Amino acid sequence: MQGLSPHEVSNFFFAVAVLLIAARAAAEVAQWLRQPGVVGEILAGVVLGPTVFGTLAPELQARVFPSEGSVAIALNSLGTLAIALFLLVAGMEIDLSAVWRQGKAALRVGLIGIIVPFALGFVPASLTPDWFGAADESKPMLFGLFFATAMAITALPVIAKILFDLKIFHTDVGVTIISAAILNDLAGWIIFAFVLSLMGVASHTFTPAVTATLTIFFTIFMLTVGRWAVNRALPWIQAHTQWPAGILAFALSMTLLMGALTEWVGVHAIFGAFLFGIALGDSTHLRRRTRTTIDQFVSFIFAPIFFASIGLQANFVESFNLPLVLVVLLIASMGKVLGCSAAARGAGFGSRESLAVGFGMNARGAMEIVLGLLALQAGIIGEELFVALVIMALLTSMTSGTLIQYVIGHKRQVSFIKFVSSKTFMPILEPGDRFEVTRLLTVAAAEAAGVSADPAVASVLTRERLFNSSMGNGIAIPHARLPGLKQPVVAVGLSRDGINWESRDNLPVHVVIVVLAPDDNPSLHLSVLGSVARAFRRPQAAPSLASTASNLTELRAFLRVESTPHAGEPDHASLP
Amino acid sequence: MQGLSPHEVSNFFFAVAVLLIAARAAAEVAQWLRQPGVVGEILAGVVLGPTVFGTLAPELQARVFPSEGSVAIALNSLGTLAIALFLLVAGMEIDLSAVWRQGKAALRVGLIGIIVPFALGFVPASLTPDWFGAADESKPMLFGLFFATAMAITALPVIAKILFDLKIFHTDVGVTIISAAILNDLAGWIIFAFVLSLMGVASHTFTPAVTATLTIFFTIFMLTVGRWAVNRALPWIQAHTQWPAGILAFALSMTLLMGALTEWVGVHAIFGAFLFGIALGDSTHLRRRTRTTIDQFVSFIFAPIFFASIGLQANFVESFNLPLVLVVLLIASMGKVLGCSAAARGAGFGSRESLAVGFGMNARGAMEIVLGLLALQAGIIGEELFVALVIMALLTSMTSGTLIQYVIGHKRQVSFIKFVSSKTFMPILEPGDRFEVTRLLTVAAAEAAGVSADPAVASVLTRERLFNSSMGNGIAIPHARLPGLKQPVVAVGLSRDGINWESRDNLPVHVVIVVLAPDDNPSLHLSVLGSVARAFRRPQAAPSLASTASNLTELRAFLRVESTPHAGEPDHASLP
Repeated sequence: MQGLSPHEVSNFFFAVAVLLIAARAAAEVAQWLRQPGVVGEILAGVVLGPTVFGTLAPELQARVFPSEGSVAIALNSLGTLAIALFLLVAGMEIDLSAVWRQGKAALRVGLIGIIVPFALGFVPASLTPDWFGAADESKPMLFGLFFATAMAITALPVIAKILFDLKIFHTDVGVTIISAAILNDLAGWIIFAFVLSLMGVASHTFTPAVTATLTIFFTIFMLTVGRWAVNRALPWIQAHTQWPAGILAFALSMTLLMGALTEWVGVHAIFGAFLFGIALGDSTHLRRRTRTTIDQFVSFIFAPIFFASIGLQANFVESFNLPLVLVVLLIASMGKVLGCSAAARGAGFGSRESLAVGFGMNARGAMEIVLGLLALQAGIIGEELFVALVIMALLTSMTSGTLIQYVIGHKRQVSFIKFVSSKTFMPILEPGDRFEVTRLLTVAAAEAAGVSADPAVASVLTRERLFNSSMGNGIAIPHARLPGLKQPVVAVGLSRDGINWESRDNLPVHVVIVVLAPDDNPSLHLSVLGSVARAFRRPQAAPSLASTASNLTELRAFLRVESTPHAGEPDHASLP
Repeated sequence: MQGLSPHEVSNFFFAVAVLLIAARAAAEVAQWLRQPGVVGEILAGVVLGPTVFGTLAPELQARVFPSEGSVAIALNSLGTLAIALFLLVAGMEIDLSAVWRQGKAALRVGLIGIIVPFALGFVPASLTPDWFGAADESKPMLFGLFFATAMAITALPVIAKILFDLKIFHTDVGVTIISAAILNDLAGWIIFAFVLSLMGVASHTFTPAVTATLTIFFTIFMLTVGRWAVNRALPWIQAHTQWPAGILAFALSMTLLMGALTEWVGVHAIFGAFLFGIALGDSTHLRRRTRTTIDQFVSFIFAPIFFASIGLQANFVESFNLPLVLVVLLIASMGKVLGCSAAARGAGFGSRESLAVGFGMNARGAMEIVLGLLALQAGIIGEELFVALVIMALLTSMTSGTLIQYVIGHKRQVSFIKFVSSKTFMPILEPGDRFEVTRLLTVAAAEAAGVSADPAVASVLTRERLFNSSMGNGIAIPHARLPGLKQPVVAVGLSRDGINWESRDNLPVHVVIVVLAPDDNPSLHLSVLGSVARAFRRPQAAPSLASTASNLTELRAFLRVESTPHAGEPDHASLP
């Protein structure tokens, strides 16, 4: 079998490792700057591609990421696999029934959110395809269709993440945005599948008319019979095969089979993967643990490799066309924000909330870029429009959360760990009574904050004497609001053996967290206390922290794991 | 970037999906026949390769699994990635400290288990390389070294699975076999890395002497400084990056980097992946959830793709050379079984247990085949010897468990579900008192077994009156031993609302399991009762089963998930 030579294996592995490391590091920076991780992953690729690395050291760049030969084919086929798996996961997140539950508002926002940007995009692009960067000007209507679709598409995973971060996922605004985005995504991809088949770029097996018919048939089939069949198949597979080997093999092989089928029919493989993802994700028999395993591996390994590899495809400086970027940004944002806001207003939302819906629907993120890349590879568009689409997707994703926050004024979660420093962390408390321990930690906190210790101690101890601050399960939170503080300050003390706190549950206290907060910001004070409670939801959390963490890094690591939903817990999906 | 055409994408996805489905199905059959799953995965590939599919329909086979062109390169690069990830997981299973804990016996068995088959292999192969199928007869000593290594290598993952299935993993015999196999694996791979570098097949960057020196240095480095550095890095990564994104990206990118490094140095990439796996698996900071995610995705997706693709490489009928197969089988088995048994005897084991150690160490499984494939691709051996090595690996893996079982006579676990039929499963019990419910289920069980109901009911009810059969947590097991039964028979009844069983914990009973067992086999009776207790260890198991399962398939699915270790539970690896 033809394969990679040892040198090529080395090159292939090195290239994938570099993409993965750069993508992760950039995603961390993006998240630290409160941006979606995917923004960082894409920018990492831009740096590694012709734009930066290729300009600084063209020969080295071409050796690490060759554009021809076996290594290029290996990287490209891995990227194709990654994008299909990413669409599987994106499909799994789509809950069709939510669209119906949300009803009228979602339907309106979803449909108008497609129609307005679609119309705004179609007219100019079909009139002046040349200006917009069509690769083949002889088919202005088809190019107009593609461009209109690109304007109309939205990005469910990015939106979901933003809403979740803003804690408005379960509000009316949040549910409307998500349901409308689902509808939007589904319609957008179906239209794009048609554009691809009409362009005749995906395959030459069928005529466009046959491809279109087969695509409609396949879509209806997967959303009805396919969904039903997957839902019936899962219990059988879980009963008769090794778990989770059987269900994982089923999910991945069906994704690839459906992908192979749609690619053969004449639309891209990702369309089949996406529809199968919807059918799989909708099944009540898909267990949370299976979902988590697929989701983690795809979201954290395959998707970053794909998104980082996008930057390898074009030179973002050379192909940067400022007028085009601005026009694309304007058409895309105007269409979405105005269309969706108006629709939300019509469905009964207030003016600020309507604007929030519009900003939410404007985030394009990953989906836009997938679509742009396919069009570039299929020769529908040139590098300039591709670059403009990617930049538009990045900017709308980056601004969406900030704009929503601005119009509806929700605050992000704070965590008490932000206010702990190495000076206020005491991994091993001497045995003592609870007032002694509280005094010790309060003094440390006051010193770290630069305020005088005595009034702080007096205030905390008075409160502690009146109200025992034990929360049960081995955790106590003595606290007070003080004048003169600009920021809260938090001291954490751990005790392996536990301190007798005279708690109601009679358990010794292993974790003592002293919170001093500014007296002019009671809501911040409560947020900090709330974040402590969230971090120690699990009954065993406090004793297990006390026996493991010996420095601030380990405390942080512990909190990070505790704050991740415990996805592996046994669950039985059909329970209410 | 050069990539796959739409037709090639379709072909690539289809080929991978077929490999995955066939591998899983065959692994299920193998496990049903109480054979290691990997045996099925390899045989699935043999069926899909030139041997069967290629003989029946050569043109179609060549279209699905082309051996030249972009699709071949895509399949091959995916296989290379899969094998590196498989070696990562194999490395993660290696616990170096266990070797030291087990001490003398493991050291003896491990070393003699290498030396004897190595010597037995080296002499004839270096004297008559031609007869053994050397591809290049001009270097008899080197070929002898390779063949000797192939005889000396063992298969840790397969052995671990066999011992676990036989429930002797934690006995003296089990721990000795595992520790010796770890030592054996490590030494075997180091020797093989040398053989590869001496052959000068892996790379032309360095002379063999430099390669050998670098390999020794790299091995020592990874097992000392590398291990320490990984252990230091993990808490930092877990504290400062998104969880589990950061740790997954770290694990995979380092595997690929170390693989790229060893490949560049002149030994195969899998060697670097394997050593990094040891360092990663040894870290006390690697959380169980991370381990499980990597393990599941690699073991159930990547590894099957790799093992199934082995069968594509050769025609197992055309290249079948009976004398060679027999001689390889004889040398391999004699060396391992005699050498290891003698070593175990010398370390103080009894004669039957020593033989069990020998049979355990004889299982070659996956590792042998990895080694054979590399040698085939590197042009060290021809197809005939490759086929002989694969057959030897399959046969030793398949017989190892049976032979151990035969010499030490352990029995496999039974599960009560084997004795439940649709006639004895009642998903919705009518409300009633506990004796009524017990009577109803006992009658169903007796009828299904074809014995008369009255004595069975009398016997079960008498026992129930004397000893309340509630086990707590909502489960009751009324049972009796009856004359005239050949097999146990089990009836299962579920009640959503629960039945008042006058249990000690005062909880209503949601699951009633009536067990009738033959009166001449008390140990089987106890095994069945034990399997019920195991299945319902989790306090919420009984009520959640009662509210979800409405047919036998769903009951089976439930039990399968319950019997899987709950890998996702929060854990803090550094706890004792």
